Amino acid sequence: MPREEYVLVCISCGESYPREEVVYRCRRCGDLLEARISPGGVFRLDTLIGRVHSMWRYRELLPSFFNRIVSLGEGYTTLVKADKLAKVVGVREFYVKLEGLNPTGSFKDRGMSVGVSMACMIGAKSVVCASTGNTSASLAAYAARAGLECQVYIPEGKIAWGKLFQARMFGAKIYQVAGSFDDALKRVMARGGEDAYILNSVNPWRIEGQKTAAFELWEQMGGKTDYVVALPVGNSGNIAAYWKGFKELQEHGLINDTPRLVGVQAEGASPIAEMLTRGLESLPDWPNPETIATAIRIGRPINWKKGVRAIRDSGGTAVKARDEEILDALRLLATTEGIATEPAGATPIAGVKKLVEEGWLGRDEKVICIATGNMLKDTNEALVSWNKPQKGD
Amino acid sequence: MPREEYVLVCISCGESYPREEVVYRCRRCGDLLEARISPGGVFRLDTLIGRVHSMWRYRELLPSFFNRIVSLGEGYTTLVKADKLAKVVGVREFYVKLEGLNPTGSFKDRGMSVGVSMACMIGAKSVVCASTGNTSASLAAYAARAGLECQVYIPEGKIAWGKLFQARMFGAKIYQVAGSFDDALKRVMARGGEDAYILNSVNPWRIEGQKTAAFELWEQMGGKTDYVVALPVGNSGNIAAYWKGFKELQEHGLINDTPRLVGVQAEGASPIAEMLTRGLESLPDWPNPETIATAIRIGRPINWKKGVRAIRDSGGTAVKARDEEILDALRLLATTEGIATEPAGATPIAGVKKLVEEGWLGRDEKVICIATGNMLKDTNEALVSWNKPQKGD
Repeated sequence: MPREEYVLVCISCGESYPREEVVYRCRRCGDLLEARISPGGVFRLDTLIGRVHSMWRYRELLPSFFNRIVSLGEGYTTLVKADKLAKVVGVREFYVKLEGLNPTGSFKDRGMSVGVSMACMIGAKSVVCASTGNTSASLAAYAARAGLECQVYIPEGKIAWGKLFQARMFGAKIYQVAGSFDDALKRVMARGGEDAYILNSVNPWRIEGQKTAAFELWEQMGGKTDYVVALPVGNSGNIAAYWKGFKELQEHGLINDTPRLVGVQAEGASPIAEMLTRGLESLPDWPNPETIATAIRIGRPINWKKGVRAIRDSGGTAVKARDEEILDALRLLATTEGIATEPAGATPIAGVKKLVEEGWLGRDEKVICIATGNMLKDTNEALVSWNKPQKGD
Repeated sequence: MPREEYVLVCISCGESYPREEVVYRCRRCGDLLEARISPGGVFRLDTLIGRVHSMWRYRELLPSFFNRIVSLGEGYTTLVKADKLAKVVGVREFYVKLEGLNPTGSFKDRGMSVGVSMACMIGAKSVVCASTGNTSASLAAYAARAGLECQVYIPEGKIAWGKLFQARMFGAKIYQVAGSFDDALKRVMARGGEDAYILNSVNPWRIEGQKTAAFELWEQMGGKTDYVVALPVGNSGNIAAYWKGFKELQEHGLINDTPRLVGVQAEGASPIAEMLTRGLESLPDWPNPETIATAIRIGRPINWKKGVRAIRDSGGTAVKARDEEILDALRLLATTEGIATEPAGATPIAGVKKLVEEGWLGRDEKVICIATGNMLKDTNEALVSWNKPQKGD
């Protein structure tokens, strides 16, 4: 089978760049780049049987040109059917994908496996990112696995303890920046990665890894696409990745229709939901993002164009969830199904509840919610204050 | 294919009990019970291809008589090859099994899936356990999934924050008992489970779930058994479960030889290592267990007879690791391979290093270490104090 071919293409002006060129934004128009693949062949449901139980089982639609694949067994996460939750929410079938069971506890590992493999391919000695926590935890782990130096920039006092703990454990150099994630990202981009390969979601290779979650849903649902997928939206790289995955399945004739993608944002950090619900042409300013869901506490989503395209083209929608609604969803999921996630991972459930109440989602729908991160990353007392231990009798 | 038959048998006097009888210890001699299976058939490497990616893929050697299987997709966890670690430790091949990627972040989920399914089978309305943390987190989740009430007894101030957090999130009734785990367990056993089904490791059904990890190693290593398996030992139910799994593979002709099992205990809670290294006939008293590895901070292992048998019969050994050695192993694993685990999960690596230095393990050996729990369960500052964040430049 011929090997796949990759090229980097600007999503606005179409300018293209060789796959191994270190370029984060189009040099002509400054917009985002996308990795475009011309596969030498493609998998089928039956050819996947017996393959490795990680996202690399979808090798035909992943880079095969790396001199080494940096992997910790990421992807191929559990999809749990939640019948009690379906009844409570009021839809026919309800599923939760446990992305918190990735090696470092979030979906970011998918992108970092590809991104850090690319860093090795181009001979980088150091990698860098700005992060709300999950990205730095993941990058730090994959950099350690690859033997690369890792620098992470985090908003001071604004990320969950467990995530900071992870980056420290994996030996990353951690810099705390006064301000928000957006300020930390500006710091990283300003340095232009002259001394380190930048692995923020502006890096198109991470989306190549994250798109495999769409392949998994397709495989785990028996090749069907008759469901709605709801995801938390922060930087909006992940919802764009799911859309890219489903579009590739469609391009290669593996599916006819694509699922609708629902993007759920925390009310205090919801520029994309604001843009779509108010029908704005561009992203509104959002200077001070605030929400208990730290993983999506982002005011200026770097991938907003890709995210908006994913929601619009899939016939989906965007919705906001208040912090109380997110906490209620978190408790509901934990106490009815025994499944827990970090606050951001419960936002899709809060959003789906709203869409059912509003009638956008019918009683007959199948819904898949993506629990993006492990509950243990954010053990904020506020999340469990409703259930206090008692003295032993 | 005929269905499998199960019976409960006393490990000392051989007295047997019907599989669904609620009995925790032999009524004749008071010793531990074991679930004995006469399978209607058995799997082979090739018949496993394409089966569910959870421990239930090994259905021929698991209970099939349940009216409902309470599952969150537990088991079938990643086995990571760690070449850099192999060099550092000085063995030919080194593997780490990521049991922290189970639904609630520890190997306990395997046992609870079977144990809580049994609770449903006998019509229990409530389940109870004493716990150092992982057991209560797991039981609370599976009880929620099954719709059962859950009570957990924990030693006050002696369990990792993340684990207490989990039990609270899943809605368990939590009772803090003054004293150690052993005191909490006495409390539970004294009540004799009159109002709740007891799911401590005295319950033989949990071991039926945990034994599947041995089946996985066999499958993931391509049917081979030419390696040493090193595990942390607290209550010693898990090492007994691995041994039961390997013995069943042997009884059914799937393997000739079994791996040697190495039990690693924290020095401050090492009655089994003490007994074996000093050649004692029974377990020495250990009134005040102390170690940073809270998951194995146990002075009187309830399954010590099964654990000692597993180590002796497999031709393995027991070894102690000091807290500093456990912390060094934790950092080594994280910074060389990008893999993190709770302190107890790193004790096998500390133990293996010692056994290589002592010459018990040769340079030519293949070693598999079981990282029993997720690092995020125990984010004790002491574990990462060696790497402090800096001010952003």
